[in-house]
Amino acid sequence: MITHPAFTVEPWSLRATSLDLDVLAQSESLFALSNGHLGWRGNLDEGDPHGLPGSYLSGVYEVRPMPYAEPGYGYPDSGETIINVTDGKIVRLLVDDEPFDIRRGRILLHEQELDLRAGVLRRKVEWRSPAGRTVRVSTTRLVSFTQRTIGAIDYTVEALDGPAHVVLQSELVANEPMPQQEADPRAAAVLAEPLCAEEHFDHESLVQLTHTTAGSGLRIAVAMDHEVTGPGVHVEVESYPDQGRVTITSELARGEHLRMVKYVSHAWSARRTPPAMRDQVAGELTLARESGWDGLVSEQRDYLDAFWAHADVVVDGDPEVQQAVRFALFHILQASSRAEGTAIASKGLTGRGYDGHAFWDTEMFVLPVLTSVLPQAVADALGWRHSTLDQARRRARQLGFAGAAFPWRTITGKECSGYWPAGAAAFHVNAAIARAAIGYIRTNGNGEFERTVGLDLLVETARLWLALGYFDDEGKFRIDGVTGPDEYSALVRNDLYTNLMARENLESAVAVVERHRERMPDLGVTDEELGRWRTAADRMFVPYDERRGVHPQSSGFTDRQVWDFAGTPPEHYPLLLHFPYFDLYRKQVVKQADVVLAMQWVPDAFTEEQKARNFAYYERLTVRDSSLSACSQAVVAADVGALDLAYDYLGETAMIDLHDLEHNTSDGLHLASLAGIWIALVQGFGGARRRRAGLTFRPTLPRGIDRLAFGVAAAGCRLRVAIDHTETRYHLVAGDELTLQHDGKPVTLHRNEVRVMPTLHPPAGPVVTQPPGRAPARRRPGTGDPQSSAD
Amino acid sequence: MITHPAFTVEPWSLRATSLDLDVLAQSESLFALSNGHLGWRGNLDEGDPHGLPGSYLSGVYEVRPMPYAEPGYGYPDSGETIINVTDGKIVRLLVDDEPFDIRRGRILLHEQELDLRAGVLRRKVEWRSPAGRTVRVSTTRLVSFTQRTIGAIDYTVEALDGPAHVVLQSELVANEPMPQQEADPRAAAVLAEPLCAEEHFDHESLVQLTHTTAGSGLRIAVAMDHEVTGPGVHVEVESYPDQGRVTITSELARGEHLRMVKYVSHAWSARRTPPAMRDQVAGELTLARESGWDGLVSEQRDYLDAFWAHADVVVDGDPEVQQAVRFALFHILQASSRAEGTAIASKGLTGRGYDGHAFWDTEMFVLPVLTSVLPQAVADALGWRHSTLDQARRRARQLGFAGAAFPWRTITGKECSGYWPAGAAAFHVNAAIARAAIGYIRTNGNGEFERTVGLDLLVETARLWLALGYFDDEGKFRIDGVTGPDEYSALVRNDLYTNLMARENLESAVAVVERHRERMPDLGVTDEELGRWRTAADRMFVPYDERRGVHPQSSGFTDRQVWDFAGTPPEHYPLLLHFPYFDLYRKQVVKQADVVLAMQWVPDAFTEEQKARNFAYYERLTVRDSSLSACSQAVVAADVGALDLAYDYLGETAMIDLHDLEHNTSDGLHLASLAGIWIALVQGFGGARRRRAGLTFRPTLPRGIDRLAFGVAAAGCRLRVAIDHTETRYHLVAGDELTLQHDGKPVTLHRNEVRVMPTLHPPAGPVVTQPPGRAPARRRPGTGDPQSSAD
Repeated sequence: MITHPAFTVEPWSLRATSLDLDVLAQSESLFALSNGHLGWRGNLDEGDPHGLPGSYLSGVYEVRPMPYAEPGYGYPDSGETIINVTDGKIVRLLVDDEPFDIRRGRILLHEQELDLRAGVLRRKVEWRSPAGRTVRVSTTRLVSFTQRTIGAIDYTVEALDGPAHVVLQSELVANEPMPQQEADPRAAAVLAEPLCAEEHFDHESLVQLTHTTAGSGLRIAVAMDHEVTGPGVHVEVESYPDQGRVTITSELARGEHLRMVKYVSHAWSARRTPPAMRDQVAGELTLARESGWDGLVSEQRDYLDAFWAHADVVVDGDPEVQQAVRFALFHILQASSRAEGTAIASKGLTGRGYDGHAFWDTEMFVLPVLTSVLPQAVADALGWRHSTLDQARRRARQLGFAGAAFPWRTITGKECSGYWPAGAAAFHVNAAIARAAIGYIRTNGNGEFERTVGLDLLVETARLWLALGYFDDEGKFRIDGVTGPDEYSALVRNDLYTNLMARENLESAVAVVERHRERMPDLGVTDEELGRWRTAADRMFVPYDERRGVHPQSSGFTDRQVWDFAGTPPEHYPLLLHFPYFDLYRKQVVKQADVVLAMQWVPDAFTEEQKARNFAYYERLTVRDSSLSACSQAVVAADVGALDLAYDYLGETAMIDLHDLEHNTSDGLHLASLAGIWIALVQGFGGARRRRAGLTFRPTLPRGIDRLAFGVAAAGCRLRVAIDHTETRYHLVAGDELTLQHDGKPVTLHRNEVRVMPTLHPPAGPVVTQPPGRAPARRRPGTGDPQSSAD
Repeated sequence: MITHPAFTVEPWSLRATSLDLDVLAQSESLFALSNGHLGWRGNLDEGDPHGLPGSYLSGVYEVRPMPYAEPGYGYPDSGETIINVTDGKIVRLLVDDEPFDIRRGRILLHEQELDLRAGVLRRKVEWRSPAGRTVRVSTTRLVSFTQRTIGAIDYTVEALDGPAHVVLQSELVANEPMPQQEADPRAAAVLAEPLCAEEHFDHESLVQLTHTTAGSGLRIAVAMDHEVTGPGVHVEVESYPDQGRVTITSELARGEHLRMVKYVSHAWSARRTPPAMRDQVAGELTLARESGWDGLVSEQRDYLDAFWAHADVVVDGDPEVQQAVRFALFHILQASSRAEGTAIASKGLTGRGYDGHAFWDTEMFVLPVLTSVLPQAVADALGWRHSTLDQARRRARQLGFAGAAFPWRTITGKECSGYWPAGAAAFHVNAAIARAAIGYIRTNGNGEFERTVGLDLLVETARLWLALGYFDDEGKFRIDGVTGPDEYSALVRNDLYTNLMARENLESAVAVVERHRERMPDLGVTDEELGRWRTAADRMFVPYDERRGVHPQSSGFTDRQVWDFAGTPPEHYPLLLHFPYFDLYRKQVVKQADVVLAMQWVPDAFTEEQKARNFAYYERLTVRDSSLSACSQAVVAADVGALDLAYDYLGETAMIDLHDLEHNTSDGLHLASLAGIWIALVQGFGGARRRRAGLTFRPTLPRGIDRLAFGVAAAGCRLRVAIDHTETRYHLVAGDELTLQHDGKPVTLHRNEVRVMPTLHPPAGPVVTQPPGRAPARRRPGTGDPQSSAD
């Protein structure tokens, strides 16, 4: 675990009060700015040093070869990987004849602040050059939510101790060298310099570069322009195929400032011509200059004020979690707000981890949060999936099935997974997409989305399930050979989670088709087909181990040999780096919540007693070698009354990136885990579930939290919920009327009405244990709860 | 299916009476010469045209990178691939100014004959050059069984119609260009020119080239020398880094001959120095020249006479099968006779298919035949496995297990499989090695081999099984997550074949340790460990489906959905090229004999009734997309009384290479299928089984065979068995006394004694069907047996 002693705990900011080069790449991810279209990692303005330079445009990728030692039918022969686009955030500074580089001279002050309400990254540095000249550099950077192609920087340098010749070099850099080398030499060759120069242009303080990608055939145009104020300023401009530079010189007396505002606009297209792109980035620059720096900052603030008004989560009593949940919501907003027709990647636009791919966790973790806090982004994200439907249909056909088989990992919709047992076989991604559509429909009504995007997605995924499964001799519907969420099992029969999610997928498809029967001819859906879906759902096989009184994760799971946890030393985690899949797959060992995930999302399939027994059974086996686990364990722990344990898991979820618990925050943030903080709070302690019949709550609080307040959306309404240890207040802030359930009792609210109900104090849940050494860190030392480990 | 109308059916030769360039690569495999150390494909003497040039030395390989789209723990990062060594078989001819090339001018006669008793490949060509000059070229080629490094060629050219200037260019060629390109560019780079020139040397008519390999670090020396007779002969010699050439010119009047005998010696080593290698190849050349051509030919004949005296199988009434079984035994001899410390590859030294790797089928198919016909080769082959024991121990440790885990595919003992579900998980290879050791011990006595090689192999494989499996709640010993022989299933629980073979492995290990208790301290085996092996064997779980009354291939197999055979068109076979593993693995569809293989090799685990029911059950599901299936189906079909069907399967086995049924004979012969002909005849119709208690027979004959005679070895004795439709004669040709069982009745024979017993006429076996279109071709048209398909 990497700790950042320099990070302060504050309600509305992430602030580093010094600079630690050992965790530079991690802090670049944490300080990344994005709007879902453009992403700028929190690299230092001057470019060097860096952990990992990063400027991304959502949807811009290059094709990479996918090699196999032994090829097989249906293996994708090429994949997609996110690439750095032309980097417009670099501003280099020379003070007299010394380049400003924080590894040289002396740092007197270094502070970075990600302001979650302003939506800007501020930096303040006081630096004494090796020659003894001292300057203060103050920069503010934003990626605009309101002007999606625009990144902007306010860069001010002040001479603190006497006259200084100051040179600012504002750069556009294409094909910036990357620190790590690809293992595959073919991929390395493709990705070393992915941008092919097409045109470059400069005029006054404006530079524009256009590039194309060789394999994916995309065109990328980036332009920058500048406003400069300061004494005796001189400006020069240059452009080259892979570089643009505006050089600003000034001589500053003590106390004098040189200020430069830099506007950078970005565009990419697979179709538009160079002149059209040129005009686009120029036009966008013009708009940004017209707004001006203050305008951009003010629009940004307004946008965020509107967001927080509904989305904010208040966590009194635990300032770390308070900060973490706002940090998380901010990054979720950044990843999704303006993605518009492109995928929301598992790292957002904060790094190149997982090749910039989107996985099922966008639908299962991120979209449920957005459904409550930013519904339009859900419609956009599912609209992107919908736009890839033809590819998914072709993939299903290739695999031998009807319907659509969405990819396990992708940028454009093409399957990019190179290991089919944990890729193609993980068909549950299709149920996740259907589930997200249903969640959105339940929240935002049965309108146009349901009739078009939702209906198409539900029909094609339902068809896939019917093709994947079969009716056995006894008429039960079974799905064999698939891989569920837990990646330490694969190719199992009747994966509990998959079967329950498929059942819901089929039921929802039937319900939505019934509401839009006029589309049946167009979709080719007959009543006979509807009947088959209904029958498959009704007869879905749900494995249950009578002897042990628990649900097996899949047929036969509970009969497997239990992993030798006692004989596994701490340094052999994560297990997948120290043991072959062969051994993991055949034993009872769980990488990440799976039956627990099923209990979280399909709670009505389990009795309360089954939930408690299942939870205790799987806690013993779950090692949490995935960041997609703790939040679900938090939710179900709370559900079964293990509130202290739920709180521990909340803590782990909250700190995954802030404390770099997975040791790879350097490659980008874990967006699904960030979403998991909200999920753990709202589903866990709020006990909120979005059921067919509407929202239900079972509010409780752990000892560490005094008060929890959050907003949720449902059935076109907006609800604010505030929980303390005594009472829970429901406030309908938008919408005419909403009926919810509080601990099983219906509560109807009208606009602006507040209803107060008692907060629950459930009996202590089951006493559970985790594998040795794998208990979550205890969130409150000294509370003496028996689930906590020593570490 | 490619048919060769030019191939004649003869008892002791394979003869092609014309040359068909479309099947050139296939005929090069069929006409390959080898002694297990050196392999020369049947390339035309003049080198061009060729299907696939091939000169191999057993054990000479290059390292090749093994790429993965998604790497995983324990995946090998490099593999091994057989490479062409310096080619010494090329002799080019110019007639006047025209190069002899069968694509030019006119072929008046072209005949090739592989003489199975002489052990030579003869070729006779009459060729008229484009300029109208006619010559007769007669060549005889051998790879010596008695001088293992020596290949030799007798090349005679005769002027048929007038004076001709004749030039012979006898070549050594290194880094001969290969026709096909590697898909992986890194592998292609490594393998395009795998030989690095080290020294070259020429003197009079001798040339020697030495090369090394970059990755594997091997040194290869090849030398040639010549004897020439003819009118006015002039000889020149040259050598270069990658080429050696001896040029012989002569002017032949009509009817005059030019004869050249070429001797080529080969050596390779990972340790020996260039001077030592130089001396070695020179010394071997000297020995060969001293023997002279006639001496080499005569030694070859003597060697083969001795082999055939015991090994020959007589099949009266079916001349095709008669030819096929001798062709097969000849190639098995060629692959193994002088392998001495190197692996017997699945293609022998007849091609580069499967990268020149050895698999489990060497132990399960080839060694059982060799155990009867060439026992020393079995000791050698298992000695090679024994020499790789340390690598196998390390591999087991890497996978997390005790004992030894032998590789799925390899040249040196290193795991080279790039797809673990059908590689690392196929642990049954270890049982195959143990089984081969036991078979050899039962046949050739409990001597030094048992005490050393056999004991070590049995102990380490027994340890592996104990580490792989576990005792369940009820005390049953289970082995989960492994892949059995049928490659259309993977990662199953309690694979029937694997569990039965592991049981035998454990029992045999106990028995052999008990006979050599003095080695227990050295092996670290305690009585307690022996006890565990015994208990695991006694309690081995053997799955049985009570409801259906059959043995499932693995736990739950018979509950799976049955493959949609009716909906699978013929062009979608082999299935693995048209369907994803995902779908194959989860359904009831069998690539190759698996339960049937278990019934073949562990017959005592099944009642007669179970065998019949199982056979019928799996016939319905078995598509034979592997060449390793028909022979086992033949054996078990005969065992259950389905004699006509057994005969059909014998026919398929017999023709796999001769008729190129798998469409890849061009890459080399299917050694295990060739062994399968012997197995189908001896185990199938002879009903021969090698049990703990000794040899047992249940002789029967199908209608198509009048008489079957073969030799087997057992308990230090040699037995000749001759079966006709009335009686079976047992003749003890070597050894003092042997007790066998004939149809369950003991028969004791003394030296030279002949006993005659009645041949069995079992009741007709079960009526069985194969998947639509997958029945074997009917061997005798018009016999009306219900199992045959229309094709």
